[in-house]
Amino acid sequence: MVTDIEPSVTVIILAAGKGTRMKSDLPKVLHTVAGRPMVMWAVEAARQVTSDDHIAVVVGYEADQVRAALPAGVTTVLQADQLGTGHAVKLALDAGVGAGDGVVVVVPGDTPQLHGSILAGLADSQAQSSGGVTMLTAELDDPSGFGRIIRDESGDVVGIVEHGDADDAQLMIQEVNASVYAFDAAALRNVIDQIDTDNAQQEMYLTDTVSLLRDALGGVGAMVGDPADSLGVNSPAQLAEVDAVMRERVNSELMASGVTIIDPSRTYIDASVTVEPGAVIYPETYLQGDSFIGAGAMVGPSVFLEDSSIGAGARVWYSVVRESKVGPSTEVGPFASLRKGTVTEEGAKIGTFVETKNTHLGVGSKIPHLSYMGDAKIGESSNIGAGSITCNYDGYEKHDTVIGDNVRVGSDTMMVAPLEIGDNAWTGAGSTISKDVSPGALAVERSDQREIPDYDARRRKKADGQ
Amino acid sequence: MVTDIEPSVTVIILAAGKGTRMKSDLPKVLHTVAGRPMVMWAVEAARQVTSDDHIAVVVGYEADQVRAALPAGVTTVLQADQLGTGHAVKLALDAGVGAGDGVVVVVPGDTPQLHGSILAGLADSQAQSSGGVTMLTAELDDPSGFGRIIRDESGDVVGIVEHGDADDAQLMIQEVNASVYAFDAAALRNVIDQIDTDNAQQEMYLTDTVSLLRDALGGVGAMVGDPADSLGVNSPAQLAEVDAVMRERVNSELMASGVTIIDPSRTYIDASVTVEPGAVIYPETYLQGDSFIGAGAMVGPSVFLEDSSIGAGARVWYSVVRESKVGPSTEVGPFASLRKGTVTEEGAKIGTFVETKNTHLGVGSKIPHLSYMGDAKIGESSNIGAGSITCNYDGYEKHDTVIGDNVRVGSDTMMVAPLEIGDNAWTGAGSTISKDVSPGALAVERSDQREIPDYDARRRKKADGQ
Amino acid sequence: MVTDIEPSVTVIILAAGKGTRMKSDLPKVLHTVAGRPMVMWAVEAARQVTSDDHIAVVVGYEADQVRAALPAGVTTVLQADQLGTGHAVKLALDAGVGAGDGVVVVVPGDTPQLHGSILAGLADSQAQSSGGVTMLTAELDDPSGFGRIIRDESGDVVGIVEHGDADDAQLMIQEVNASVYAFDAAALRNVIDQIDTDNAQQEMYLTDTVSLLRDALGGVGAMVGDPADSLGVNSPAQLAEVDAVMRERVNSELMASGVTIIDPSRTYIDASVTVEPGAVIYPETYLQGDSFIGAGAMVGPSVFLEDSSIGAGARVWYSVVRESKVGPSTEVGPFASLRKGTVTEEGAKIGTFVETKNTHLGVGSKIPHLSYMGDAKIGESSNIGAGSITCNYDGYEKHDTVIGDNVRVGSDTMMVAPLEIGDNAWTGAGSTISKDVSPGALAVERSDQREIPDYDARRRKKADGQ
Repeated sequence: MVTDIEPSVTVIILAAGKGTRMKSDLPKVLHTVAGRPMVMWAVEAARQVTSDDHIAVVVGYEADQVRAALPAGVTTVLQADQLGTGHAVKLALDAGVGAGDGVVVVVPGDTPQLHGSILAGLADSQAQSSGGVTMLTAELDDPSGFGRIIRDESGDVVGIVEHGDADDAQLMIQEVNASVYAFDAAALRNVIDQIDTDNAQQEMYLTDTVSLLRDALGGVGAMVGDPADSLGVNSPAQLAEVDAVMRERVNSELMASGVTIIDPSRTYIDASVTVEPGAVIYPETYLQGDSFIGAGAMVGPSVFLEDSSIGAGARVWYSVVRESKVGPSTEVGPFASLRKGTVTEEGAKIGTFVETKNTHLGVGSKIPHLSYMGDAKIGESSNIGAGSITCNYDGYEKHDTVIGDNVRVGSDTMMVAPLEIGDNAWTGAGSTISKDVSPGALAVERSDQREIPDYDARRRKKADGQ
Repeated sequence: MVTDIEPSVTVIILAAGKGTRMKSDLPKVLHTVAGRPMVMWAVEAARQVTSDDHIAVVVGYEADQVRAALPAGVTTVLQADQLGTGHAVKLALDAGVGAGDGVVVVVPGDTPQLHGSILAGLADSQAQSSGGVTMLTAELDDPSGFGRIIRDESGDVVGIVEHGDADDAQLMIQEVNASVYAFDAAALRNVIDQIDTDNAQQEMYLTDTVSLLRDALGGVGAMVGDPADSLGVNSPAQLAEVDAVMRERVNSELMASGVTIIDPSRTYIDASVTVEPGAVIYPETYLQGDSFIGAGAMVGPSVFLEDSSIGAGARVWYSVVRESKVGPSTEVGPFASLRKGTVTEEGAKIGTFVETKNTHLGVGSKIPHLSYMGDAKIGESSNIGAGSITCNYDGYEKHDTVIGDNVRVGSDTMMVAPLEIGDNAWTGAGSTISKDVSPGALAVERSDQREIPDYDARRRKKADGQ
Repeated sequence: MVTDIEPSVTVIILAAGKGTRMKSDLPKVLHTVAGRPMVMWAVEAARQVTSDDHIAVVVGYEADQVRAALPAGVTTVLQADQLGTGHAVKLALDAGVGAGDGVVVVVPGDTPQLHGSILAGLADSQAQSSGGVTMLTAELDDPSGFGRIIRDESGDVVGIVEHGDADDAQLMIQEVNASVYAFDAAALRNVIDQIDTDNAQQEMYLTDTVSLLRDALGGVGAMVGDPADSLGVNSPAQLAEVDAVMRERVNSELMASGVTIIDPSRTYIDASVTVEPGAVIYPETYLQGDSFIGAGAMVGPSVFLEDSSIGAGARVWYSVVRESKVGPSTEVGPFASLRKGTVTEEGAKIGTFVETKNTHLGVGSKIPHLSYMGDAKIGESSNIGAGSITCNYDGYEKHDTVIGDNVRVGSDTMMVAPLEIGDNAWTGAGSTISKDVSPGALAVERSDQREIPDYDARRRKKADGQ
């Protein structure tokens, strides 16, 4: 167990809803924000206050899909019928989640902006309180649709009224429930069975526990948070807004660590991507999935990178790179497409109008222009002439091409795979090479050059109809 | 005639001016906003309250150019000398426009933000009024340059004073004339001849009708609108602003309909483009002219599309597509250029570093890489090897290439047109094919591969000067 | 000397610091803003009030690097030990800078937004004043970190207190020192030796001269400026902000001059670039270094241009252009890469998937697709077929290819350099041309096309394991 983790904190993440207003069959919590499913943002926040074995996710709609997106060590609880947030928490408690003495934090699964530090603050505050719950609230200019916080004359919280159940005076209240709570575990277990479905939605509201706990233990704690940090995503438009906010946060953290991002508003970096300090990211760049950018690398403008690594000091621009490893000090682009399984060693070059797939390029080897290399293994210090192609597909199957060290492949060489070209070998420009080439030899496939004199004059006559 | 159209409404669009401050020889109303000429935005708004035969456009500067941009059914009236807005409307009335009893709506041709719903509101309001005119106004922080609305003590509009004719007290007024009016047709005809040119501009102001109508009929109606909806474009900077506003409106409407636009601020969609719900548009994408995107298609990043359609479920990225039809589930790019007359059927592929022109690609056929196909007809399930080219230009004329079904064109095949390659035929890699190929046959043009041993050693010696 | 220059004004630019908070080994003043090193922005501002021989730059950290970025006519003064701004100015005065009667303006080297007009205003104001100094101030919401302006009851400036030396009352002052001063030269020389290092930083503060000059000559002048114009760059984040501001200023000035920039927020134009009125710049375009865009040219979307010129009426899109000259009415792209030394004449074309290097393309000549031309000289009205390549590298050295006028190079022609193809000559598609071609002749290197019947049937059998 990590030292700075509070073992007595349990986090329950509510992730059972479909999110009908998202206009999508994908469970709401699986929509991604900065490339990470929303429910995983909640898990990452939870991990800042507890260990995986103290994190429980209540799943329901497309439960298996949601489970598949979660880390192995996290507990899931199935809420087959969606009878409200109170019901969801009850199911978790019934399943033994938060069984000890400590604090139970409940968070929505659709609030990616929520910092772990806010959960820590709530949990700490609750741990030091004699009351049963400490909740997060926010003040909104337009509180419409949110549960309102009811306070008494002395300013103490006495309960929450859902929008649909509020009277006119309550509708004027601008302080709303952010739906994040830290409960005393034992107290929560005592009241959870008392909540009912006697309300507009006919659901078990978790919010009802607040007044129950106040009646039982007095003093409800409340922390007023920044609305930007705590409000959930309920529509495609809100998803787009939160995505922008979180991408800005990812970019800001990278910049603070020493990464140069020329124009953050035009740079899309997934939360899952590692970028070392000293890297420079130009605009119109997408870094996605399990990707890595080394120190001093220059990436962009106009790069799409997916599940790939870029070595220190490499330069990649105007290119698409997928499931590949670009070595240190390698140049890629402008206008290259690296497909799955491309690996380059130090100082290699994949230049302009070059596509590669399942190809290994050794130290200092270059494919400068207009080539396709597929299923190829190229040694060190070799040069592939412009217009060269591995004919790796025989119409039925793919075959390999092996090119040695210090090879000079002439321009427009067709390499009909399976093929092996030995170290120090050469091929003649315009040759179709279908038999292996011995080390040090020149292989050439060519006829004699012939000249037909006065061809132009005759063509002109013909074109003139003579 | 469409059911929900009010036949008694006539709309006069004022589009005669050059727009000197635009610093361009193009008539101001032909500058485009979200890809549509400004005057056509006015026509589209007018179409929401009446039929084309009740829409008249007053043209003057470069009248023929403006006429050419208008739908056939719309009336145009020539204002040869530009003697003011009152003069323009008078010419239209004299030509018989708005001859009946109904309402005459007058709108500027340079106000693309103006919703048809605003025109409808004005016309309805006027139709129910006993007065002679209902006008649109706006309240501005800086009213400088605009005609001011003069109201009496009871708040009723009594007239309009142009900026150049206003006294100091009038210059303090922040409510301005938005230059959009709904007139009682008969009343307008009665007063239009009474307006004169006794003012700072020495022009016939349409605004003078307002006080004349008040004197004749009392009660001038006024609706205060959003300044953002009604102020005209008078400079390149304002054009850029309005263009941004209208593009945002186009994007918002698409998003509300179920289209996903990843970053609306980086997506340029003309108002003329249809995008089906379920399509996803990535940044740096331009969709222009008469274009269509089908449901589930993924377009972008970095796509320039002009007068083209993308079928349902297709993916197009890092590509330029002009006057082409991309079929359903077709893959295009990264890095492809589809020129005029490219048509693909379902499940086709135009891959990386591929250019096509006037080429038809059958169901499931693929041109994966580094190829140019021009004036070609390719059947179903055929594969074009990397580096293949249709030599469609003989130096004088273009010729066609016909490739059958299930053809395997080897890499780097030159197809010298006119040429026909039969069904199930193959070509050898690196072959120049200048004669037709029989169905099922392999055509090859190649010499024997020779090997010159120890070539590298000799070259090294030579390079070393030995 | 230029007429509107005031010879009695001397400008001292302070550029000795490393700028530790920039987290970079590059001297702070060499970080670029809109492509121009910050210290050169200060020099350009200074040039609006004086001539180069009256501009002195105090250098220190990496002095040689900073000197190399400065124009030849500007004086530099070395501050080996960085003992404060007062010390820097003292060294300059000791070296004879500002020796005459006039005004000495002191500006920081890290304030690129500072307009020359502000320096002119300060210098004029000081020249007409009986006091010893006129300074620029700014009012900040958060003055933290800045020297505060101390005024007496009548509002006159009496001195400046650095943040680290301020008491609680002084810390509340929001008016801060913008670190830009116009001194009476003689008065400054009189007091510069009196400032000491008795302060929190143990440095000689230039700010101390203010109270000394007030004591000596009374009345300190102060102009309150816009904070946005005068605050320095002290972190990568501030650099990014100022860079955005200055790029916006560059774009605004171009637009005001008649250049159309479709989306200024997505267009990166260095201050060093000239763009003629009537040019149109599309988004995602980078214009860098010593570059020029002619009237009527259309550049972008997605163009990276470095040290290159684009002729009037040319169109360049989706391309990278470096150290090249694109002629008038030339088409480039989509998807072209022009490398160092590419020059095109009027009406030429470098099309799609074409790379060029050190290549001259004559009037009306075209390289439409999929070609690499390196070290080539191509005459007028010639056409290079798709897939053609100059094999300019023999494995050891680069060689030239010379192509005449009206040449028709067939598709997929390999031109093995050194090579000369005469005027009006042709080459056959798919030929490797390694010997010179006579004018008007057709050169071809090709075998006979053979056909192997029923190949497909046999391949199918084999694939089926029969």
